[in-house]
Amino acid sequence: MIVTPQRHRFDSPLRLRSGGVLPSFELVYETYGQLNAARDNAVLICHALNASHHVAGQYADERGQPLPKSEGWWHNMVGPGKPVDTRRFFVIGINNVGSCFGSTGPTHVNPATGQPWGADFPVVTVEDWVEAQARLLDALGIERLAAVMGGSLGGMQALSWTLQYPQRVRHAIVIASAPNLTAENIAFNEVARRAIVSDPDFHGGHYLRHGTKPRRGLRIARMIGHITYLSDDVMNSKFGRRLRPLAQALRAGDTEAAERLAYRYTTQDIEFEIESYLRHQGDKFSEYFDANTYLLITRALDYFDPAREFDGDLSAALARAQADFLVVSFSTDWRFAPARSREIVKALLDNRRAVSYAEIDAPHGHDAFLLDDARYHAAVRAYFEHRVGAGLPTPTAGGAA
Amino acid sequence: MIVTPQRHRFDSPLRLRSGGVLPSFELVYETYGQLNAARDNAVLICHALNASHHVAGQYADERGQPLPKSEGWWHNMVGPGKPVDTRRFFVIGINNVGSCFGSTGPTHVNPATGQPWGADFPVVTVEDWVEAQARLLDALGIERLAAVMGGSLGGMQALSWTLQYPQRVRHAIVIASAPNLTAENIAFNEVARRAIVSDPDFHGGHYLRHGTKPRRGLRIARMIGHITYLSDDVMNSKFGRRLRPLAQALRAGDTEAAERLAYRYTTQDIEFEIESYLRHQGDKFSEYFDANTYLLITRALDYFDPAREFDGDLSAALARAQADFLVVSFSTDWRFAPARSREIVKALLDNRRAVSYAEIDAPHGHDAFLLDDARYHAAVRAYFEHRVGAGLPTPTAGGAA
Repeated sequence: MIVTPQRHRFDSPLRLRSGGVLPSFELVYETYGQLNAARDNAVLICHALNASHHVAGQYADERGQPLPKSEGWWHNMVGPGKPVDTRRFFVIGINNVGSCFGSTGPTHVNPATGQPWGADFPVVTVEDWVEAQARLLDALGIERLAAVMGGSLGGMQALSWTLQYPQRVRHAIVIASAPNLTAENIAFNEVARRAIVSDPDFHGGHYLRHGTKPRRGLRIARMIGHITYLSDDVMNSKFGRRLRPLAQALRAGDTEAAERLAYRYTTQDIEFEIESYLRHQGDKFSEYFDANTYLLITRALDYFDPAREFDGDLSAALARAQADFLVVSFSTDWRFAPARSREIVKALLDNRRAVSYAEIDAPHGHDAFLLDDARYHAAVRAYFEHRVGAGLPTPTAGGAA
Repeated sequence: MIVTPQRHRFDSPLRLRSGGVLPSFELVYETYGQLNAARDNAVLICHALNASHHVAGQYADERGQPLPKSEGWWHNMVGPGKPVDTRRFFVIGINNVGSCFGSTGPTHVNPATGQPWGADFPVVTVEDWVEAQARLLDALGIERLAAVMGGSLGGMQALSWTLQYPQRVRHAIVIASAPNLTAENIAFNEVARRAIVSDPDFHGGHYLRHGTKPRRGLRIARMIGHITYLSDDVMNSKFGRRLRPLAQALRAGDTEAAERLAYRYTTQDIEFEIESYLRHQGDKFSEYFDANTYLLITRALDYFDPAREFDGDLSAALARAQADFLVVSFSTDWRFAPARSREIVKALLDNRRAVSYAEIDAPHGHDAFLLDDARYHAAVRAYFEHRVGAGLPTPTAGGAA
């Protein structure tokens, strides 16, 4: 499935919860499948911290051939014959404002100054993102979504859709998410932000003017994040206490060398395989991600709390929702633990909403929502086939609907 | 109880597991209570990452009055009438080499160069520390310890004592500890180290020569550490999602102001109370702690793994131990989870050692080992009273034994 990003410009201002205003803005998005004549088979996918509009399919080179490793971040979930089947549903991937992947964000030029926004980009919230997404749906002529779906921060957006636009959502699929962050979640975000902000190359957020970027801080931020995405179990089984040179020797088939290997006793160099892995993740991230975007998106996470206006009563907060729900959590996810998903389920049941809940026994921690787990995908597939797709034509085998 | 640190110089070299050598070294220590005539009532306390020889008692000002807030780090555990009762036991607090609290460490002068050791200080291990501690006991004329005791990294030293000097330890008290670090533990240490090493003020570890120190990195390291010392539950109950200005207003009794307070929407300033707390911890730590010491001590944690020479077989590794054991863990400690303590207990039982095990239901996470928990202290008190103290004279009420 070859896909091409599209771009839509909005010339009426977006007034943000923070008091800031984007006088105009652009959203980058992709679509997969066909919008049907009734315009009622649209599924919106919301992204989390580190992702974009590029949910599924592949990009093409100049000759129209698929580019290697250009698959969308949820390509195992969305596509022809996938759990969210693009032969049946018209799926929209959208990049949020504040991001660094194409939609209006802090690396773009602030029209008021002619300079990049940098740290002056206004604080954006989950609610703002949902409002911007709703404007794109208006532009696409979609009055009502068959479903809105997301994992982690994306799940918060899906939940917020049902509260901000209850009439416009038939189903919400909220995966590995939470009704708000715990103190520990905020704490991890804060350490990551401090690593970025205290990097001398951050320059108060105006590093672009200085021709630099706070790579050191971004590396640390990503390393911290990565630890919280994985479970203790999966880290032990993937890396354990394996030494880095040992792992290299084993890969080279040199078992004799491997046996001779001992601790090198170093405080600054890599000793354990897990260190090598984390440094690599940090290095990659620091090259492609924008530091101000990292601050903005972690703050959107921190601020999300629909129960806040209701004295912390989540059931009262969710009373507005009209959608049906699928809520999914993963047993070893300690970032957004199953108990947090159960809070959502309980509050929805208090409001007599139709809720399906799947707690998937998976070893991969928070990352599980992105992985190809048979039981997880079966639960999402069944929900889309029988619930979201009820009343929609079934796909003809092999053909694009 | 007024105490004064003492210092002992060792002129014969300490050959380290890393291959490094300390040609001479000094250990700073404190003692509490009286060594009895049989010299068999000594209890050695081993410290963890952030502590020192100052275990109990208080320091005095020039007039001999106790200095406020000068209590030792385990003063709720050690002292007259405390669970480790200094009327009965002669307790030794000792500062390890590599530390920044007095014993020979990276801020001291390398005799070979006349410059501070800095990053050239050799890598030290738990085993090296235990060997140095044994030399101090030789100097004090103590052949055999009534008990060796420690929490966290201190517990690793207590365990290592029973393997390195099985004849010299009657009892080992291993609290909130583990037989080695998991991949996740190492990962958190590594992120903290990277934050320090990548601080431009680190200068490859020779920051003293540059008249600076990597405060930014130390702050981040401490913030990360602090999150892992606390449980999710205790963070939620102490801080939750409370806003910083709200907390300030409530402390000032201004509930009306508190009710008006809303999100300020900021990416770089403090919004939540937990952020304020973590920043404060990081700031304090960055002033008093040495960065090279942080690297050394976290590496000592990473490297500790007595089962390593036995193909990972902990039971085989602990076969040398002759001591009796009290092992204690805390239910919400996710840094050194109870399951890790149970590994130690199982391996000891495999070797038919006498083991008492207490798994304390406490909300405070890893930090619990430092706190005044009634059930925890009762368990330690009973063990010292009835097991360690068996055969020793009981203290006379109120008097120094």
